[in-house]
Amino acid sequence: MTSKRIVAVGGSDAGISAALRARELDPDSDVTVVVADAYPNFSICGIPYYVSGEVTHWTNLAHRTAEDLKATGMQVRTNTLATSIDVADRRLTVRDENGREEQLPYDALIVGTGAVSARPPIDGLTGPGALGPEDGVHLLHSMGDTFEVMRTLTERRPSTAVVIGAGYIGLEMAEALTTRGLHVTQIEALPEVLPTVDLELGALVHSELDSHGVEVVTGTQVTAITRGDSGSPLRVHAQRPDGQTLIRGADLVLVVVGVRPDTALAADAGARLGAKGAIEVDEYMRTSLPDVYAAGDCVVTHHRLLGTTWLPLGTTAHKQGRVAGENALGGQRQFAGSLGTQVVKVFDLVAARTGLREHEAITAQRGWTPATTASRPDDHKAYYPGATPIAIRVTGDATSGLLLGAQLVGRRGAEISKRVDTYATALFQGMNVADISDLDLSYTPPLGSPWDAIQVAAQAWEREHRP
Amino acid sequence: MTSKRIVAVGGSDAGISAALRARELDPDSDVTVVVADAYPNFSICGIPYYVSGEVTHWTNLAHRTAEDLKATGMQVRTNTLATSIDVADRRLTVRDENGREEQLPYDALIVGTGAVSARPPIDGLTGPGALGPEDGVHLLHSMGDTFEVMRTLTERRPSTAVVIGAGYIGLEMAEALTTRGLHVTQIEALPEVLPTVDLELGALVHSELDSHGVEVVTGTQVTAITRGDSGSPLRVHAQRPDGQTLIRGADLVLVVVGVRPDTALAADAGARLGAKGAIEVDEYMRTSLPDVYAAGDCVVTHHRLLGTTWLPLGTTAHKQGRVAGENALGGQRQFAGSLGTQVVKVFDLVAARTGLREHEAITAQRGWTPATTASRPDDHKAYYPGATPIAIRVTGDATSGLLLGAQLVGRRGAEISKRVDTYATALFQGMNVADISDLDLSYTPPLGSPWDAIQVAAQAWEREHRP
Repeated sequence: MTSKRIVAVGGSDAGISAALRARELDPDSDVTVVVADAYPNFSICGIPYYVSGEVTHWTNLAHRTAEDLKATGMQVRTNTLATSIDVADRRLTVRDENGREEQLPYDALIVGTGAVSARPPIDGLTGPGALGPEDGVHLLHSMGDTFEVMRTLTERRPSTAVVIGAGYIGLEMAEALTTRGLHVTQIEALPEVLPTVDLELGALVHSELDSHGVEVVTGTQVTAITRGDSGSPLRVHAQRPDGQTLIRGADLVLVVVGVRPDTALAADAGARLGAKGAIEVDEYMRTSLPDVYAAGDCVVTHHRLLGTTWLPLGTTAHKQGRVAGENALGGQRQFAGSLGTQVVKVFDLVAARTGLREHEAITAQRGWTPATTASRPDDHKAYYPGATPIAIRVTGDATSGLLLGAQLVGRRGAEISKRVDTYATALFQGMNVADISDLDLSYTPPLGSPWDAIQVAAQAWEREHRP
Repeated sequence: MTSKRIVAVGGSDAGISAALRARELDPDSDVTVVVADAYPNFSICGIPYYVSGEVTHWTNLAHRTAEDLKATGMQVRTNTLATSIDVADRRLTVRDENGREEQLPYDALIVGTGAVSARPPIDGLTGPGALGPEDGVHLLHSMGDTFEVMRTLTERRPSTAVVIGAGYIGLEMAEALTTRGLHVTQIEALPEVLPTVDLELGALVHSELDSHGVEVVTGTQVTAITRGDSGSPLRVHAQRPDGQTLIRGADLVLVVVGVRPDTALAADAGARLGAKGAIEVDEYMRTSLPDVYAAGDCVVTHHRLLGTTWLPLGTTAHKQGRVAGENALGGQRQFAGSLGTQVVKVFDLVAARTGLREHEAITAQRGWTPATTASRPDDHKAYYPGATPIAIRVTGDATSGLLLGAQLVGRRGAEISKRVDTYATALFQGMNVADISDLDLSYTPPLGSPWDAIQVAAQAWEREHRP
């Protein structure tokens, strides 16, 4: 039997996970990863902590070093762009940094091209004469973007920044720049920061930003970025909800309003696209093209409650990549589906969610009557020093009692991120809200309560919504 | 319809939970709780933190105040001993602190008499002239015991203590007395401290005690406690594994070697006893006596993996009490079963377990081939400051792949207690070890990894034991 030739495109979570899994399962497999830049297997989720100075050297952001990867027996081709797929002949055309083209034959191809920063329709950000990194105006998604931000920080020594967007990266970057000593204004178009959680919980994050000196402006759409004067080289123009104009001078502007799937390679080869223009894949991570798999931020997401959607997350990319790597070898593994479990630390606060919020549950059209109950149980027994309340919102189907989702916000140290994991595991198993009280969870007074906070919140939901 | 008369015996977790649940479900129910001492609804798990000084006043150890309890509409009779049950006539005889007897009629009785300290066969601890609290020799289980320990601490100002036993309470008390400035020697008969986890993990707890100045002596059986001299009023005599005698002088001796179920009331009325002499109950918390329920440390424990055993835990008592309270009203709720999930903080270390260890899985006689894999994944991404390894031991059935149990030890702050909860939830649902990698868990670099530590440990098990 000849060894199978696997080629993965993309050096981030999905591509590397696929390559690692293939090498793990079949030491005879011939695995090549094609990486557009020089930074394979970097943790882009760690970028804010490098910018903040908490990670002292960018090389530390690598999940694995080049040597680690080589030791697995895979080949990694850096600074190499995958330009086209010849599906019929099973060849990938790549171009190296010197412009040399080459064709890589494959038995199975795994596309993990990821996502690219969304560039919102803001005057001064697009078109001829658009402002860019050399002006102190940055998008931030890749290691390349990161180095440009760091250059602005070290060479221009900015004292003020405007962060446009208050999602995960926006919030982490507002914290990172504040930690570096900049005065930060954060502008969000939606009514509250962290729009992935309910308003009431976003408001807690908003307060945390306030109390750390971040100027937070919500419900405000940025319309233009212009050159300012020597005192403030950039000016950000925005429209407040009341129609008034807001103008902020800044030395640095960061535009972090989200990402879109990078699908050109697969789409040009004829791959079908699905939700949000992401590459359509089945649960086996197969695209519509024979022998072409895809995984990560560039593909649609199978969601256990929502069906097919698009929900790019590093955890999902790792899982999908692992599935793709196994199936590329002939395996029959299915991606078990996402629940959209997420967590973010903002200064000393942690916000997490899993499953669905009410409006999302309605979107799912599964006949649910979603209802949400808010509660604020302590993280551990109040008599033991340091107890803090956790704001929990449990969403369930008032008809069947099915757990649909949970959102939690609490202090760092209140073990928010692992508490959401228990809800995520319950959701994964299709448990009812009432059954959460049956779970045998751990308890010691410094770390919990005889009924854990997540059970107290479930019981509050039950009292309010069950017949 | 006349209101139902519910009488609960015992003011700790099981009795109060039952009473609360009955009042919650039926505001017309007539609910009385009979409490032997003056401290209903106290958190006995919190005693070590009162002794240490971290809880500043003993009244703070109450889960609820007398007013809170009264506000629920239940009656609480403190300092009242339940002396006998007349099953045929459905009456409970009680005796108040003045020796007055009374008969309380009931429609349903809930026995929550709990457990009492085991008194090991140590010379000087039993028989005529036995040493006791007035000599600085203490058992520790109730609030009454606690006040006696506190009196010894304040009146005799001891500088040295011997703690006999290194289970949960023993370890917490070694920490508490060290925190108060005493020099502590801890003597454990078994080969390692915290014998509820595997030796390798107990050894980590042992090191933590060492590094905080506790003298730890394992494999050593205490044979006698005698009066010493004025320098050291007590002497503890023990036999080392090599047969040598160990003698330690001490100002205070604490004997915390476990508890046994307090079953006299129910047994005298004819209730059938089961495992370890605990009151036999079914999953509905019914005893063998009509209209008599029982819950908490005094009853056998239905375990999801082991069948019927005896495993007294506060979390279990709360759940069983809640079930008993509902069924006493005519409900049909079943106790879902324990997994023995436990956690203890010892100085800056946290140790937790859920489910079965290898030898326990063999005892279960379910045809399993239990196998354990050890791993040491970091609690969060190593590049973010403060990452620490978690020692994890995953046990699974090498034949079917079924998850059987997990044990974790790590630093405080590594979210050990909530990580064990995810394993507990997976166990509750009968998941395979391999399926843990499918769980959609939360991730942010300061708090986790794209594959959480618990998934990394599961994957290590899978690599080692799955065909």
